[in-house]
Amino acid sequence: MTTFDYAARMRRARVEMQERKVDVLLASLGSELPYLTGYTAMPLERLTMAVIPTIGETVLVVPELEAPRIDPIPGLFTIRPWGETEDVIAIVADLVGDATTAMIGDHTWSVFLLALQEALPGTSFVSARPLTRALRVIKEPAEVELLRRAGASADIVAGLLAQHRFSGKSEAQVSSEVSAMLEANGTDTAGFAIVAAGPNGASPHHESGERMITAGDAIVIDFGGTVGGYGSDTTRMFHVGEPSPEYNEVHNAVQRAQEAAVAAVRPGVTAETVDAAARDVITAAGYGDFFIHRTGHGIGLDGHEDPYIVAGNSEQIEPGMAFSIEPGVYLPGHFGVRIEDIVVCTDEGVERLNSSPREVAIVE
Amino acid sequence: MTTFDYAARMRRARVEMQERKVDVLLASLGSELPYLTGYTAMPLERLTMAVIPTIGETVLVVPELEAPRIDPIPGLFTIRPWGETEDVIAIVADLVGDATTAMIGDHTWSVFLLALQEALPGTSFVSARPLTRALRVIKEPAEVELLRRAGASADIVAGLLAQHRFSGKSEAQVSSEVSAMLEANGTDTAGFAIVAAGPNGASPHHESGERMITAGDAIVIDFGGTVGGYGSDTTRMFHVGEPSPEYNEVHNAVQRAQEAAVAAVRPGVTAETVDAAARDVITAAGYGDFFIHRTGHGIGLDGHEDPYIVAGNSEQIEPGMAFSIEPGVYLPGHFGVRIEDIVVCTDEGVERLNSSPREVAIVE
Repeated sequence: MTTFDYAARMRRARVEMQERKVDVLLASLGSELPYLTGYTAMPLERLTMAVIPTIGETVLVVPELEAPRIDPIPGLFTIRPWGETEDVIAIVADLVGDATTAMIGDHTWSVFLLALQEALPGTSFVSARPLTRALRVIKEPAEVELLRRAGASADIVAGLLAQHRFSGKSEAQVSSEVSAMLEANGTDTAGFAIVAAGPNGASPHHESGERMITAGDAIVIDFGGTVGGYGSDTTRMFHVGEPSPEYNEVHNAVQRAQEAAVAAVRPGVTAETVDAAARDVITAAGYGDFFIHRTGHGIGLDGHEDPYIVAGNSEQIEPGMAFSIEPGVYLPGHFGVRIEDIVVCTDEGVERLNSSPREVAIVE
Repeated sequence: MTTFDYAARMRRARVEMQERKVDVLLASLGSELPYLTGYTAMPLERLTMAVIPTIGETVLVVPELEAPRIDPIPGLFTIRPWGETEDVIAIVADLVGDATTAMIGDHTWSVFLLALQEALPGTSFVSARPLTRALRVIKEPAEVELLRRAGASADIVAGLLAQHRFSGKSEAQVSSEVSAMLEANGTDTAGFAIVAAGPNGASPHHESGERMITAGDAIVIDFGGTVGGYGSDTTRMFHVGEPSPEYNEVHNAVQRAQEAAVAAVRPGVTAETVDAAARDVITAAGYGDFFIHRTGHGIGLDGHEDPYIVAGNSEQIEPGMAFSIEPGVYLPGHFGVRIEDIVVCTDEGVERLNSSPREVAIVE
């Protein structure tokens, strides 16, 4: 189990808060809380919220029945368990006190934000995204190592899938099989597995269903599990029997686009330049209108986080940033092709965290 | 696949909105959207939000790459796909227009609420909970039938577990086994399975971990999967070898408390009366300080929803309300005991949706 220097992270957070003239950070669901304390809130209706003042003691307000889950790091925070008949909003409001500006974690449920706004009319609430981005967008070496291990697990599974039988199985069944393979090969969680066969592959976020996989299907498999909270996210293409010339043409364009975008990653390049590197190849091949999403997203404790590799994002890529490169072409009614790796920007250029073959795997 | 009359639900929602002087309902993550449209938003950073005006056309704003997932019911809503470089907050704000009061779904991420508040300074945002409670707290017969099927699956799994081998396995392994059993016996999803052995049973929301189960362990298993989106949530007790007299005394008190609370359910009784029925038995047995949570929670599209069976909640139970009855006693450092069924209030009294034995199962 990798442990992080939470005290150092908390100090960095407070420096960033002071610079931003923020009095308190409220961390509930989402990655702020595990990043700063190692504890993950349960996504339930009983509020868990860390009240982290810029100056003063951090208090983790937690349902009494969940308090035994917590193993607090000495000196990092204290616990305020709240009972079933207590008013948790009043407890948090009391801890926030007369703060002028409170940052609140992005994934906090709106019902809690609305209640806190009502209880604290003098406090201005703002998104914690700029803060957590500043803290988390450059990965620590130990974080990169976890991403690397998650990527290695995904590569093993990609290898197994290239030998796997698909025809006669439903997408949902293959999705379950991929999840089991991930858990059996090094990830802590079953993660996710989009399995989209035939025309369903043209839906980038397809929900794997009862469609039976059959001869002639192109199959998009987009999958990943986590290691120590850090995820993999890989997409590989499979084809039941020999693909058509049209499939091969599209696959080739997507694969070249993916290579071009990976090759474009180095310190100082902008996110949108990396996006354009992929998009230009696909546009030149005549499929530009069918590449309907950005080229990639950051990855860390959140499966999708900064930086986003998208047109209009002129932020510079820096060493330690980790993100996906995943161009795709989606031909409605026919098929889709997406190829995805996680990469990390290094001092010299780029490290790919996935090395399984990017060619289409011919399967039965 | 059960389909619901979404148009009728939408009409009821609008009547309730008009009565509450609400101009628009904004439904994103959470159960409002699937309840009213049959579509479930992806929990990602690209906003999906239905803009449902009290008068006028419903528009589902959805990421372009997720639009192919949606099979819209004719006449119910239109789709506004948004591209990667569009400003989705501006799109939603434009649809909300000059609304004075907007209800927003409870689970909507705060980052979106903050952005909408900034974009719509003249609009007051309030929680949608009172509205969705009014719509959803009384279950339709078809909803009760799905809860019944989910409960029946849980009962099958409880029966299998009574014959299962536990010792020498980790909590996490048994948790995976329970999930697989649920999927193999009628639920759509692997659901959840809290497996808490020995002293870990004293933590009601224990995260199943690497602790090996061994002779003499009391094991709390709290589990459930969904059928058509409606969940089961059952807790049964297992014991490796013969329990101690102390265990039997606690189990007996919890089982009698559970029976008493179930027997208390009928139309017109208050939620807190049902809570007290369980609590009084446990207090009389001398364990009142160790029953550290409410007696139950409503269940439907959300695993936890109204009505909450808790002291201080004087709302009346009505036919069609579905909720858990789950008293527990938690002895820190020793063990915990919880027994849980889902029940539905009927015109005559109560229907239990779980019928597997509530006695402790002696296992190997």
